[in-house]
Amino acid sequence: MTKKHTVILQPSGRRGKVDEGTSIRVAARELGVEIESICAENATCGKCMVLIEEGRFEKYNVDSKREHLSPVGSDEQAYFARRPNLLKTKGWELGQVRLSCQCKVLGDVLINVPEESRGNKQIVRKSARERAIEIKPSVRKYYVSMTPPNLERPIADWERLAKGLEISMGLVRRGEENLPRWSDLSIDYACLRTLSSTLREAKWNVTVSVWQDKEVIAVQPGYVEESYGAAVDIGSTTVALYLCNLRTGEILAAESEMNPQIVYGEDVMSRIQYSIEHKDGLEKLHKAIISTLNKLLKQAIKSANLSLRAQVAKQSSDEEENPTDEVPLFSQGLLRREEHSPRNDMKTDEILEMVLVGNSTMHHLLLNLHPKDLGLAPFVPTIHKSVDVKARELGLQINSSGNIHVLPTIASFVGADTSAMILAEEPHKQDENWLLIDVGTNAELILGNRKRLVCTSTPTGPALEGAHVEYGMRAAPGAMERVHIDENTLEPKYKVIGVDGWNTDHAEFRGHVKGICGSAIIDSVAELFRAGIVDSRGKFKKGLGSTSSPKGDRIREGASGWEYVIAWAEETSIGRDIPITQQDVRQIQLAKAALFTAARTLLKRSNLESPDKIILAGGFGSYIDKEKAMLIGLIPDCALENVYAVGNAAGDGARIALLNVEKRKEIESVTRRVERFELPTDPEFQNQFMLATSFPHMSESFPHIAHLIPHRVPDPLAKNFMK
Amino acid sequence: MTKKHTVILQPSGRRGKVDEGTSIRVAARELGVEIESICAENATCGKCMVLIEEGRFEKYNVDSKREHLSPVGSDEQAYFARRPNLLKTKGWELGQVRLSCQCKVLGDVLINVPEESRGNKQIVRKSARERAIEIKPSVRKYYVSMTPPNLERPIADWERLAKGLEISMGLVRRGEENLPRWSDLSIDYACLRTLSSTLREAKWNVTVSVWQDKEVIAVQPGYVEESYGAAVDIGSTTVALYLCNLRTGEILAAESEMNPQIVYGEDVMSRIQYSIEHKDGLEKLHKAIISTLNKLLKQAIKSANLSLRAQVAKQSSDEEENPTDEVPLFSQGLLRREEHSPRNDMKTDEILEMVLVGNSTMHHLLLNLHPKDLGLAPFVPTIHKSVDVKARELGLQINSSGNIHVLPTIASFVGADTSAMILAEEPHKQDENWLLIDVGTNAELILGNRKRLVCTSTPTGPALEGAHVEYGMRAAPGAMERVHIDENTLEPKYKVIGVDGWNTDHAEFRGHVKGICGSAIIDSVAELFRAGIVDSRGKFKKGLGSTSSPKGDRIREGASGWEYVIAWAEETSIGRDIPITQQDVRQIQLAKAALFTAARTLLKRSNLESPDKIILAGGFGSYIDKEKAMLIGLIPDCALENVYAVGNAAGDGARIALLNVEKRKEIESVTRRVERFELPTDPEFQNQFMLATSFPHMSESFPHIAHLIPHRVPDPLAKNFMK
Repeated sequence: MTKKHTVILQPSGRRGKVDEGTSIRVAARELGVEIESICAENATCGKCMVLIEEGRFEKYNVDSKREHLSPVGSDEQAYFARRPNLLKTKGWELGQVRLSCQCKVLGDVLINVPEESRGNKQIVRKSARERAIEIKPSVRKYYVSMTPPNLERPIADWERLAKGLEISMGLVRRGEENLPRWSDLSIDYACLRTLSSTLREAKWNVTVSVWQDKEVIAVQPGYVEESYGAAVDIGSTTVALYLCNLRTGEILAAESEMNPQIVYGEDVMSRIQYSIEHKDGLEKLHKAIISTLNKLLKQAIKSANLSLRAQVAKQSSDEEENPTDEVPLFSQGLLRREEHSPRNDMKTDEILEMVLVGNSTMHHLLLNLHPKDLGLAPFVPTIHKSVDVKARELGLQINSSGNIHVLPTIASFVGADTSAMILAEEPHKQDENWLLIDVGTNAELILGNRKRLVCTSTPTGPALEGAHVEYGMRAAPGAMERVHIDENTLEPKYKVIGVDGWNTDHAEFRGHVKGICGSAIIDSVAELFRAGIVDSRGKFKKGLGSTSSPKGDRIREGASGWEYVIAWAEETSIGRDIPITQQDVRQIQLAKAALFTAARTLLKRSNLESPDKIILAGGFGSYIDKEKAMLIGLIPDCALENVYAVGNAAGDGARIALLNVEKRKEIESVTRRVERFELPTDPEFQNQFMLATSFPHMSESFPHIAHLIPHRVPDPLAKNFMK
Repeated sequence: MTKKHTVILQPSGRRGKVDEGTSIRVAARELGVEIESICAENATCGKCMVLIEEGRFEKYNVDSKREHLSPVGSDEQAYFARRPNLLKTKGWELGQVRLSCQCKVLGDVLINVPEESRGNKQIVRKSARERAIEIKPSVRKYYVSMTPPNLERPIADWERLAKGLEISMGLVRRGEENLPRWSDLSIDYACLRTLSSTLREAKWNVTVSVWQDKEVIAVQPGYVEESYGAAVDIGSTTVALYLCNLRTGEILAAESEMNPQIVYGEDVMSRIQYSIEHKDGLEKLHKAIISTLNKLLKQAIKSANLSLRAQVAKQSSDEEENPTDEVPLFSQGLLRREEHSPRNDMKTDEILEMVLVGNSTMHHLLLNLHPKDLGLAPFVPTIHKSVDVKARELGLQINSSGNIHVLPTIASFVGADTSAMILAEEPHKQDENWLLIDVGTNAELILGNRKRLVCTSTPTGPALEGAHVEYGMRAAPGAMERVHIDENTLEPKYKVIGVDGWNTDHAEFRGHVKGICGSAIIDSVAELFRAGIVDSRGKFKKGLGSTSSPKGDRIREGASGWEYVIAWAEETSIGRDIPITQQDVRQIQLAKAALFTAARTLLKRSNLESPDKIILAGGFGSYIDKEKAMLIGLIPDCALENVYAVGNAAGDGARIALLNVEKRKEIESVTRRVERFELPTDPEFQNQFMLATSFPHMSESFPHIAHLIPHRVPDPLAKNFMK
């Protein structure tokens, strides 16, 4: 019987007995700790370094000596000899640091697996709370070195590669029955087409990218470490793409573009309409988004290469100061310098996977699925389940064998972007009840905790994004972003993007304002209400008299009804007074009524008074004043410190799904159990909606902002509002 | 506890106990007998009819009465009421015949499952021996009837379909844990694209085609019974396509065309050369075969529809004589008449799968894989394993979601056609040692039995197909197909395709001969040798003197050396004497030497003197005179009654793989264990080859044709030939 020895692994603390002669890397795997390796355990990649912890042995009461491991072999010695600086920099000595694929257990040992050698890396994401994301990409790379074929063994290229791969992937070594064998591996057809020329060009030394442990999707000559992927959030207005390193999780570039479909319709409904009314409508909408995605991919690669080039330049100037005497591995023909150095010549076909999210309409248009049934009752999408499709099927210019993963949709108007938001924020893992709101032209809402999640969606109109508001504009330099109205003088002050401080902080303030962006619109309406200029029904009050402004009366009857001037013509770059009009207030009332009714419906269905936390996703949520939003009743009452703006949660979710393949399964199963409400089917909806257009001053429903609510305007309607 | 009853199923004899209340169809499945059904057990398709066998109960000692089954229900009654002729024709009465999905077990019963209701049907194939092929296609059809979506349940189209499918496929009912659930089903992307419009057009009643029990590849409106598939043998010269009904196995059309790649090179080597020398060579060769396959598909559909139309016409005239009073199911909106009647409007996208075979070069050109490494030592193919790829990836015009299955290759020059031949002839299931030979421009040979199979290949040149022979031609009207030479008078007689009997049977024989096809060339050379006109080295003997022909001397020195005139100019339509020349004899010698050496090598490696059976595949094998072939040493010695010509075994194998998905796994594993010999690596090869060019008259090696061998020409070389 083989002798057994105890192995303890730090920092995980995992321990257990393994057979004498087992390598540390294999021992670690048996004990549940993955250690990196991409050279098929040939002592060439150095990814599997571990530290032999002699100093702390007594603590564990293990009698561990260096002789408890096989001596440093010649391959291992050669590896470190080629990198004398490595040991110097880290202050390590050979023997203390070992290649875990080479050193074998001969007695009890205590091993420290440093962060960089751990198989499942993590990156930290800033969110409602900090959270680590484990890196488990669907694509893994393996280095395979083959004996060239000869007349005695003229086995086919694929079988030769697959057998080599079986060793590199450790399929043979593990010897577990349910693991795939080489004959279970497959190769994508497009990749097969170039296989024979690549193998010969590479002199039978290649790096193979395997998707989901089962399909070969890329074969690159020589030794290649990095894989790349892209995560994309397709918004109705903006498309954002993140180019990531699939091994480290690092974001190499983030690019965004306007959604080109805007020319066919500003909101999803008008795009659906376009696709119905025009024979080639779907084709145009589909091609528009595909070509923008391809443009973003190119831009991202360019940016990534630029910053990598800067990095390399810095590195080599550092090296001049501390010259390296590393004997390059490429002199052995094993590595090519340009591939071992940080890359600055990334090509589109090195992007091996893409994860996309978007609302149901964006989802359908991306996949070239006709969206007409999304626009007609009963508003049914073609598919909820996530979709995996080859890049070439969609014409996306990443590696043509690469996979395109589109996250699942949840309901008619609760799309893959909401799935991504759930993945990023994880309400399904909470004990508290969280309310997630993604506000755009349409708003999606998720409420619940680990036991139950309910969702709904509602159109909010474009007002919250600054559109359809008389002087509305996007958040860009010159846009008013904050507004405050003195409730005594009724005089405003405001902040403008690109200018420090309030306008009143400056002696003169000429020509700085261009328009009003979403957050300032919310502010303005909230302030008009708080200052008592508009009543709880949103109507401008008559008889307030003239304001004390020296420039004239700010509350006035304009061309299209009553309005309040925030900026006089001379303060603007457009040479016109910028007012908030009765019409603008009306737009915001409709939007907030929709949002508020949706939130109240979910709360009521969940038997909750209010959520424990409110999470606002999307660009909109990041800029609005939470207090003001609550004041006009855009969001339900909640302690203000529990209202979080998390930015592009959909984009974060897409990135999480890109970097961790298990998260895809997780969200698939979570979305399947989310309960959906279609608001129009709620008999009370219309009634509640009308009530919700008024501004909330039922202080009992909004204890957290009660002090801000003007008490001079009691509103009897509030009593009838659904609880 | 539920009561249990015994169920006996005929003709299989399977028996066992099942729970009371189980339907006969489910009971049968539990006992291992599949009964057809495509209506999701709704008593509408009638595929699951069974007979209740009362008369033979005593024999089985089962006390079985009709009350042992649930009474005939209204659905069942309705089914038979709509088809009164059905019972009349068969002489059955209701109660004796039942729908097995409807009738439930209430006591012990004896059931007869008629052939047409059995789930796994068989067709019989004529081969070296008669053999039944079980029908288990990779594509199965299921009828799914869904509730349309509404605002209360606006679940997506795919999920609605998949859940319905789960019931139709019996995934839920079986309740076994390892069976897929609806959420494990997937849908091909191209099929997904049309899903929503098909479902609505079909008013939510569709027939779904599922590939390999896991992927939906077609959704057709209404109730559709038949699926179609195509099996193709791509020869270097001829491409043969069989259009089959995947449910019954019936061949609906068989079409063939010349391989259009011939214009780029007559044999595989010259086509490989063309692909190397021309930048767009591969593309041209690939596109040529794809467009021919598409042409064949169109032709086959046209033929199939023509013959189906004839069938329908016959049927309706029969019906006029015996009018049917069937109440059509389509009046209930369930069936559409045109789909229930035999079809005559089959479309290309109803062809749901295609299985292709061909030699390694044809295999590579079909798949658009560069064949250059097949043409250069060490002659390595890109892949051995079978390939599954979507029709749209290759541009093959069947259903774009349909699968293209290409059988595995075995060695450099032993391709997917040989795999198909093995599948058709099954040497791997024999105790005897069989030698399979597929002769074309290249010959592939397989030798062995269930324990061991060895294979090799050898170029034979075009002579055996009538090419490169001075007056050679294809087997077509006007081609000489048989030749006999009187060994005393040295006068010939011959048979011509399209003319009855020998030429000598006719008083005059003018203008009938155009040339000599392969079988007549073998005959001629064998007869020249047998009659002593050429010697064992294949040389025309001098000094035989003039022959007794009144038209002149048949043995004469022509422009390019000695020759023997078979037909005088006046007997031909070309106005020239048709001779067999020294050069022709030489061509045959080289071809037969290659073939013979290959066969001897395999026999030697298997320690065998001779095979128990010789199976000649391919058109060539069907027409040659086995005795003559053995006389010139084209094939090794074997009892003549054990030499079989099986025609297009490769095409048969393709058809078997098309109709039975399990056969694909079988051949994959068989090909993996076939031992390959590359002849050029055999050190003795050149020497043996030279020896084998002489004609075999070592009677000890050919006991079965010893009486034919002319003893006047002893050949000392024979003694040195490998045993």
